[in-house]
Amino acid sequence: MTTLVASGKTKELYTTDDSSVLRVHYTDHTTAGDGLRNELIENKGAVNNEISSMIFTYLNENGVATHFIERVNETDQLNKKVEMIPLEVVIRNFAAGHFQKRFGTDYLQTLKEPVVEFFYKDNDLHDPIVTKSDAIGLDLIESDKLAQLEDDGLKVNQILTQLFDKMNVTLVDFKLEFGINEDGEIILADEISPDSCRLLDKDTNESLDKDVFRKEAGDMMPGYLEILNRLRAAI
Amino acid sequence: MTTLVASGKTKELYTTDDSSVLRVHYTDHTTAGDGLRNELIENKGAVNNEISSMIFTYLNENGVATHFIERVNETDQLNKKVEMIPLEVVIRNFAAGHFQKRFGTDYLQTLKEPVVEFFYKDNDLHDPIVTKSDAIGLDLIESDKLAQLEDDGLKVNQILTQLFDKMNVTLVDFKLEFGINEDGEIILADEISPDSCRLLDKDTNESLDKDVFRKEAGDMMPGYLEILNRLRAAI
Repeated sequence: MTTLVASGKTKELYTTDDSSVLRVHYTDHTTAGDGLRNELIENKGAVNNEISSMIFTYLNENGVATHFIERVNETDQLNKKVEMIPLEVVIRNFAAGHFQKRFGTDYLQTLKEPVVEFFYKDNDLHDPIVTKSDAIGLDLIESDKLAQLEDDGLKVNQILTQLFDKMNVTLVDFKLEFGINEDGEIILADEISPDSCRLLDKDTNESLDKDVFRKEAGDMMPGYLEILNRLRAAI
Repeated sequence: MTTLVASGKTKELYTTDDSSVLRVHYTDHTTAGDGLRNELIENKGAVNNEISSMIFTYLNENGVATHFIERVNETDQLNKKVEMIPLEVVIRNFAAGHFQKRFGTDYLQTLKEPVVEFFYKDNDLHDPIVTKSDAIGLDLIESDKLAQLEDDGLKVNQILTQLFDKMNVTLVDFKLEFGINEDGEIILADEISPDSCRLLDKDTNESLDKDVFRKEAGDMMPGYLEILNRLRAAI
């Protein structure tokens, strides 16, 4: 017996026989513009399930504690059940997207060091940016946990930047989410895929990620498949 | 001979015989809504010049290095010349304004500890919020200087909260600006007045500040004069 316990913009979470384990189903839903656009893109769920499984396995093997257990079929994976922390952790190596617009920088302007930003996950508030001081003042999280999110984000950035370098891909920026497991420890959760990362071919600066969909610049799936194929070769 | 060297939304800066000293003229201009509203409110310049002079004198006497030298007439004061740091430092003790709206909190919700936020002073960008990580990544300021702005902001908050407590006034939040003097030191600059602070009568929660103007809730000058009179009694 399996029950749907939560349904996000792109994924569905189901119970399993083990109360500490969830089955996560990756759908083909693809969203942009704060969820205003929501389309089904064939095969996206399966490709992201495989990409995210490979990256989380790689992170598990490289000393990052994650929720990932195993991929069980084309579109589904098993994850440890966690209580999600309602913060998106965004790590930026180059200026793009929201950051580029906010500060009026050039696209891909180099940053002096990687930037870590937090956004408060709240649909009604449109996920506002939250400084560390805001988060503490609002009692959203304890300061040691916040520091760990930042440290873990930077560590993941270091590992993934090296991995993508090997794939001739630039990791421009990406979003992480974390949860608290049954032992009260913070572990990496959610997914890492071209839905949640900006990834450019190093030779052409071509987007191999959801920016193709955001900008309505054609079929995004060739880029996603390119990432999957380069991952298979690199890992 | 005196020359206008800069003109802000509410103040004009003039040279003096001493190249390290500026005369700052407080005008009656009052702005709101990112400068879209700009009105002349009689006597505001003189009142803010006196309030800011008293507060800066008090801060000078309480161990905070500031640009303030002396008030020279009703609307003018002498300030040490500094190179302004293009960051607004906002300190919040209770939720209001931009913060309240961003996080959907109640008006005057208590914060677990004072919040310090930075905004990048850029009219074209509408003074976007900038996290400490953003500021470092964008190379807007060195990290030790940024830490000093935060420490100084919290120190000023402590001193002013106590001062306003004596005046039966709640210091809800306020904005500071800093500059770098000829010796390369960061010192407090700009002004501290009901233009730049949210100040409430502790008994009635009545606004004694620019929120009266922002909300078009009548004549703001009685509140400004009330702050001036209570300051005269307290200091």
